[in-house]
Amino acid sequence: MARRLTRHAPPHPGRRHTGAMTGLANYTEPPAPTFLFDLDGTLIDSVYQHVIAWRAALSRLDIDLSVWRIHRRIGMSGGLFVSALLRETGRTLSEADIAMLQRAHQAEYLAQADSVRPLPGAADLLAALTERKVAWAIATSGYRATAHQALAMLGLPDDAPMVTRDMVAHAKPDPDLFLAAAALLGVEPRHAFVVGDSVWDLLAARRAGALGIGVLSGGYGREELERVGAYRVYADPADLLARADEVGVRGLALPG
Amino acid sequence: MARRLTRHAPPHPGRRHTGAMTGLANYTEPPAPTFLFDLDGTLIDSVYQHVIAWRAALSRLDIDLSVWRIHRRIGMSGGLFVSALLRETGRTLSEADIAMLQRAHQAEYLAQADSVRPLPGAADLLAALTERKVAWAIATSGYRATAHQALAMLGLPDDAPMVTRDMVAHAKPDPDLFLAAAALLGVEPRHAFVVGDSVWDLLAARRAGALGIGVLSGGYGREELERVGAYRVYADPADLLARADEVGVRGLALPG
Repeated sequence: MARRLTRHAPPHPGRRHTGAMTGLANYTEPPAPTFLFDLDGTLIDSVYQHVIAWRAALSRLDIDLSVWRIHRRIGMSGGLFVSALLRETGRTLSEADIAMLQRAHQAEYLAQADSVRPLPGAADLLAALTERKVAWAIATSGYRATAHQALAMLGLPDDAPMVTRDMVAHAKPDPDLFLAAAALLGVEPRHAFVVGDSVWDLLAARRAGALGIGVLSGGYGREELERVGAYRVYADPADLLARADEVGVRGLALPG
Repeated sequence: MARRLTRHAPPHPGRRHTGAMTGLANYTEPPAPTFLFDLDGTLIDSVYQHVIAWRAALSRLDIDLSVWRIHRRIGMSGGLFVSALLRETGRTLSEADIAMLQRAHQAEYLAQADSVRPLPGAADLLAALTERKVAWAIATSGYRATAHQALAMLGLPDDAPMVTRDMVAHAKPDPDLFLAAAALLGVEPRHAFVVGDSVWDLLAARRAGALGIGVLSGGYGREELERVGAYRVYADPADLLARADEVGVRGLALPG
């Protein structure tokens, strides 16, 4: 009698089906997927507060940028963010100015952090993954000083697996954050899904060799995310939780 | 000798080329295009302030909606806006609650109206159209009480051609605002370009029988606008001004 695969148990990483005498094909079964989550716009509803904070910081240097141009740069490294915006305005800034901008952004963001909420389903999704022993980590272009506040909001302990800007050489769209998060979990990036709301997440995912899952909750359009290579696009974490079977995690939305 | 068309003069509406004895083809020359502009996100950088204002208004009724869902509804009729958001949350509200929401949104918006700026090129574009005798009007889903503040910001007189929510039966995505604006200018909608930042503008343009031009300055992605039928998409009014020859207005970016 052929051995049956039990559908609800996590498959063993690298388990080899030899096929002999069983009727099963001969191949290496892939390990269970793991998830590397962006934070802002993916797990918490904070993109617009970041937009407002950058706009206020830039206005201290009399830099008037249209709000949509700031929005489309959120989620990338702060240094690249400032460089990109300056390129669009044709201005140049000293290193001291750039450091001031980053400090001002952080202060302006923290001043309105009280209005930030978790996105629908975010806490449930992480809890369900933990319950099902599916490994996950957070990887954010933000600094720990701003990002750690999100943990309590998501019902997570202070030592939840998270890689922040402080811990890597380069932020998104460089792959460092996702490579570091995969290393933290002890998994290969090619067996991880990167979940993010911005094109910078999805571009970094591809450089890391991971598949990217887009969410609309950061304000990008579906087509923008598909265009940079999203494997799937969901509305928000609640939508991903409800349809996680599409990306190989079975029974996630059911009671644990 | 064949009669030459002068390229820089506005063509005469309905002028008929008979073709006989001239070598020119026999057809009715189309009138010069006219422009019907949306306001928020198209001429002024006010979409994010509207988003924040709606979020604050909704929170008075303990309705917590993700910010991106609010953003994607900006620009449509306030009544439809509330209905759509309620559908997404599964709630129902009394007519009194809905009226309160609209008043609260207006008050919250006006409280931060000082931070609204014209979009790059908006004032120059309207001035250049006026200078070249290209007819234009503004058509906004907003009420006159909130919209008239934009006129001074754009260097326009109080009697600039504008149709507001107060003046029509239905707002976008119904075609009424653009039909009324075309009527105000005495032009047929099919000879007008509707310029807008949201899918609601472009959908209303198609129902009005006009061609829609999208701008990215309201925060929608290019592909979203193309998908609902944008004839062209520009970054913002400055970009449209620089490339207006693509839509049949020649020499607009040159000094008048």
